[in-house]
Amino acid sequence: MALLVQGPKGTQDLLPEQTARWQVVEQVMREEASLYGYGEIRTPVFEHTELFQRSVGETTDVVQKEMYTFNDKGGRSITLRPEGTAGAVRALLEHALYNEGLPVKLYYFTSCYRYEKPQAGRLREFHQFGVEAFGSADPIADAETIMLGKSIFDRLGMRGYSIEINSIGCPECRAKYHQTLKEYFAASIDQLCDTCKDRLDRNPMRILDCKNPPCAEVAKDAPIMLDYLCDDCREHFDGVKSYLDDAGVKYEVNPTIVRGLDYYTRTVFEFVSNDLGSQSTFCGGGRYDGLVAEMGGKPLPALGYAIGLERVLMILQAQGIELPVQSQCELFVAAIGEAAQKRAFALVRRMRECSVFAQFDSCGRSLKAQMKYADKIGADYTLVLGDDELQSGRGKLKNMKTGELTEIALDEETFASQFLAATVTAGSAGADSSI
Amino acid sequence: MALLVQGPKGTQDLLPEQTARWQVVEQVMREEASLYGYGEIRTPVFEHTELFQRSVGETTDVVQKEMYTFNDKGGRSITLRPEGTAGAVRALLEHALYNEGLPVKLYYFTSCYRYEKPQAGRLREFHQFGVEAFGSADPIADAETIMLGKSIFDRLGMRGYSIEINSIGCPECRAKYHQTLKEYFAASIDQLCDTCKDRLDRNPMRILDCKNPPCAEVAKDAPIMLDYLCDDCREHFDGVKSYLDDAGVKYEVNPTIVRGLDYYTRTVFEFVSNDLGSQSTFCGGGRYDGLVAEMGGKPLPALGYAIGLERVLMILQAQGIELPVQSQCELFVAAIGEAAQKRAFALVRRMRECSVFAQFDSCGRSLKAQMKYADKIGADYTLVLGDDELQSGRGKLKNMKTGELTEIALDEETFASQFLAATVTAGSAGADSSI
Repeated sequence: MALLVQGPKGTQDLLPEQTARWQVVEQVMREEASLYGYGEIRTPVFEHTELFQRSVGETTDVVQKEMYTFNDKGGRSITLRPEGTAGAVRALLEHALYNEGLPVKLYYFTSCYRYEKPQAGRLREFHQFGVEAFGSADPIADAETIMLGKSIFDRLGMRGYSIEINSIGCPECRAKYHQTLKEYFAASIDQLCDTCKDRLDRNPMRILDCKNPPCAEVAKDAPIMLDYLCDDCREHFDGVKSYLDDAGVKYEVNPTIVRGLDYYTRTVFEFVSNDLGSQSTFCGGGRYDGLVAEMGGKPLPALGYAIGLERVLMILQAQGIELPVQSQCELFVAAIGEAAQKRAFALVRRMRECSVFAQFDSCGRSLKAQMKYADKIGADYTLVLGDDELQSGRGKLKNMKTGELTEIALDEETFASQFLAATVTAGSAGADSSI
Repeated sequence: MALLVQGPKGTQDLLPEQTARWQVVEQVMREEASLYGYGEIRTPVFEHTELFQRSVGETTDVVQKEMYTFNDKGGRSITLRPEGTAGAVRALLEHALYNEGLPVKLYYFTSCYRYEKPQAGRLREFHQFGVEAFGSADPIADAETIMLGKSIFDRLGMRGYSIEINSIGCPECRAKYHQTLKEYFAASIDQLCDTCKDRLDRNPMRILDCKNPPCAEVAKDAPIMLDYLCDDCREHFDGVKSYLDDAGVKYEVNPTIVRGLDYYTRTVFEFVSNDLGSQSTFCGGGRYDGLVAEMGGKPLPALGYAIGLERVLMILQAQGIELPVQSQCELFVAAIGEAAQKRAFALVRRMRECSVFAQFDSCGRSLKAQMKYADKIGADYTLVLGDDELQSGRGKLKNMKTGELTEIALDEETFASQFLAATVTAGSAGADSSI
């Protein structure tokens, strides 16, 4: 029976109390992304496996160890997306979105899948909000993109995070750096894990983000890419910093940021927080000017990033930030007997038409149990209907915060206008959208 | 290269123009479900395979032919969810949500996966909005649930759909019906497909929804469940109809509705439209009073349904219904030269802080190309910045609908207040939320 009542390892359900918080966060992301000119895109949860091998990179941990890959009933190898950029680029190419005028700015909410050891802040199914902008090679676009992240986190009230940026250059200057890095790691080859030994020739930068402690120990004194940037990459990076300075955005240059995916070029960045335990990065991305061509399109500069939604929610929780979640119940109509239940149902129907969160009992419970339930769901107002009320055609609306009672008529139309008048005066609940 | 630029067969991308419409539909569903007291739940895209075998049923087409089932790297059999109810019930049990006060009312947006032959309105990855209510056995709950569907479709402006209801009884009265059905189909056993021959003993009702034409031909004259309802089930069904009548909800009794999943009991219903071609059902569900116990929980009456989002969007499109999608761009600032671009960026930043959808050029295009882009994204207002404007500190804001020009200061604060004043007077764009 265990398999019937337990979700798969490394996954997590979000229950209504949590989704209410997620909805607020997602709405802020949606609105800010729209303000910055991004439109939403949705791509399938699985793609052809080749897509991730090519874009994320054959030598990455993600592709080598972590993908959910399987054959469908038609014998095609498909993979649950381990990240969101590859699908967005594939959709850009499939639908030739670059013909619609540049830049093409896309945002998405996706679930992603990586077979890793589950721990706090690291799930096998996790959720990202991502943005991708195609068409601008200008450092002003890098600055603008980073600022969208900052706008989101500031509006959510997040405190004490930092923005760390780096440049990992272009294929030209990186070739020289790779050579230096190879020589550096070759000198300590015995300390490297087998995967990293294999990476030494094919992609030595991947050794920099190996999670094995001996590899990390060797990597910490490795040469840094910033010292090997070509003039164009240097100028681009200076431009990004200058635009961020102009806009008053504080950041730190962190030469150790390389990101775990192969497609990045030039600017890479992370938003980090001390409120996450060992997983300090909650937003990461950068430029990937070569990826569109790598996947068969015409060369198109691009950049983007993803925000880990679970991690953002963890930080907000850790910082005790109150999110303006919606009221669950503005009116609960308790009823005793079938005739009263019918009247309750009619009133509730009418109030829902007026956009009032109205509930009644459909479980045949005692009055006491109904009132307990109304209390549990936090009803702002209650009304009790029994024989007396039905006969007189009048009831008493109770404000659950103040205890105040207001007499109210029980025909739908009069009830609706009196209820709305009474609750508007009292400054009733409903969504507070002060964020 | 084809695999890199083509999504998997039977899946579909939603591009920004489409998601803008989906967002409106989803927001209506979210709001109506909240008004009816439902809270959002999110469960993983995959579950242990046993969950679907047990809940959806071993003898269903879904489990026998259509599931995306595979082993993860730990050797566990997992399946991409073919429908949403099983995961919701599993979460209810895992988190003992029934202890939180009944009813437990959950809604969800999910992607679902069935390996079927793709056709219009039938995808391998498709999307559902679903609701599940646990705890009420009362027919008033059936009526309320059906009315939530009606509220959603009416508010979206959908026309000409019909609500079809049926009762498929409880395990007691269904046993007698099964026996009759077996005898009926046994008489024509040679015309049945192999799958249906196998079903004859195990679950003859499943033959009623076999898609093979010869089986469907035999099935069309089969005895109907309504004629075999026990007294309790008959009374329940009469109650549902009576509550719907009271609320003025029009419906038809359609004795051929059985739904393709094993867990249903008593009330089943479908919302059907003639604007969908061969796939006429866009919402279907019913009661499943036995499922919670079947999955190891205490008996708990329950009911729910799912709405096919692709199909709803198809109907709205076919009916030419305009959805109030959000403006993409309220202000576009075109700039000539680097200094002007910096000023444009500063103005755009300030306007975004004021929740104005503001854009500028980050692609280094000519003025002509910038204006073409502004036109393409439907900018409500434009401003052109060049050397003259920078020197004088004043520019001309152009209303793109009327052509009217307004002189405006270029320091951020004055610009913001003048822009907001000018556009409020002109009754500018922004989201129209009349739905």
